[in-house]
Amino acid sequence: MGHYFLENLELDLISMSVEESRHLTKVLRKQMGDQLIFTDGKGTIAKAEIIDISKHECRVQIIDRQYNVGKRDFSLHLAVAPTKNVDRMEWMVEKAVEVGVEKITFIICERSERKHLELARMERIAIAALKQSSATYLPEIKICTLKELLASLTPVDENEIRLMAWCEDFDHTPNIKEFPINQENILLLIGPEGDFTSQEVEKAKQFHFQEVKLGNKILRTETAAVYGCCAISVLKS
Amino acid sequence: MGHYFLENLELDLISMSVEESRHLTKVLRKQMGDQLIFTDGKGTIAKAEIIDISKHECRVQIIDRQYNVGKRDFSLHLAVAPTKNVDRMEWMVEKAVEVGVEKITFIICERSERKHLELARMERIAIAALKQSSATYLPEIKICTLKELLASLTPVDENEIRLMAWCEDFDHTPNIKEFPINQENILLLIGPEGDFTSQEVEKAKQFHFQEVKLGNKILRTETAAVYGCCAISVLKS
Repeated sequence: MGHYFLENLELDLISMSVEESRHLTKVLRKQMGDQLIFTDGKGTIAKAEIIDISKHECRVQIIDRQYNVGKRDFSLHLAVAPTKNVDRMEWMVEKAVEVGVEKITFIICERSERKHLELARMERIAIAALKQSSATYLPEIKICTLKELLASLTPVDENEIRLMAWCEDFDHTPNIKEFPINQENILLLIGPEGDFTSQEVEKAKQFHFQEVKLGNKILRTETAAVYGCCAISVLKS
Repeated sequence: MGHYFLENLELDLISMSVEESRHLTKVLRKQMGDQLIFTDGKGTIAKAEIIDISKHECRVQIIDRQYNVGKRDFSLHLAVAPTKNVDRMEWMVEKAVEVGVEKITFIICERSERKHLELARMERIAIAALKQSSATYLPEIKICTLKELLASLTPVDENEIRLMAWCEDFDHTPNIKEFPINQENILLLIGPEGDFTSQEVEKAKQFHFQEVKLGNKILRTETAAVYGCCAISVLKS
């Protein structure tokens, strides 16, 4: 049935919004004493009991908290160029949150047809996916240029494997399964519909990005991103 | 740029439809001598040359054929209960075709909220995904009840591994990576939003279905289906 989301779960008493209160009474027919589950998107799960309920107001009291629920022992950072069609990015965010991702950075590349993205909307979609799928970790979502992303990296990081889904020489590019992925952090770079330029690839290689193939077909940007989340989940589980 | 789809590629001359002819001239600005790529969705790739082009008619001549292009040395049969929301199934078909799937059967289960599905529409989506992603194999798409699916199986088939994403005892269910998957055929069963009934699970077990976990979170039906396609692609690549 999903979780409720609240950034701050340190308080013991929570007043639900008018909209949620209506939903709780009218649709879910909740009553005094019924329990709800909350998450803060940072690994906390709080069990709460309804202590006051009317059509317009519902208040709950937290009766139990658990921390670091569902924490993975690795961290996947997906850096993906936004597609021209924004629906495909919304879908990607939803599925990435469901499957598991710690950070999403939308990267503007030289050949990106879309240079802007409403980040607040992507965050709302991520929260909705978190609630619906009873996930406990909300990814950090950012947007920047590929240059800025690379500039933010240390040239060498032994705890991070950096993979780049770029497939000019598709037949000779290793599949993702062929990498041992022993590092704690995985940074997966996925290019725009027109692909990275060779200058971008050269620049990324200076930061130790390795070319990777996601299966035996060239995938659309958003499909490659979700394939990457699934592949990491499979290989690290 | 994608492929064109034509079921019969045995003829040497092809007349494009009026709509496609318009698109070729007006949007793609194709001319005499330009080449197009066709697939029949059965592994054939045909290269064709435009020999006649006007606003309303375009005729091409096949100049080269390759067979079994992109054929996988295994076959994934995805048997998935349709979700209430049909958009989610359309999305699933698109992504499954992109990632790779040999057969999709929509299975009606006891707890299925949706008992019907417009198969012709699903086939159109599969063809669109095939064209767009330059794939070469179109999955066979069917619909039947879970009982009918099971009745169509031989009780024992050494060439087929049968997996069922059912997670009542989630913590003790093996992850998909833990199965060796040496068999040529993989049949992956994914239940409805309300899950399989225990009778359905018992019945499936009589046909040697084994419980499997797709990652460490319980996924929505359509996400589980696409995760399954990605996982098989990763593990068998």
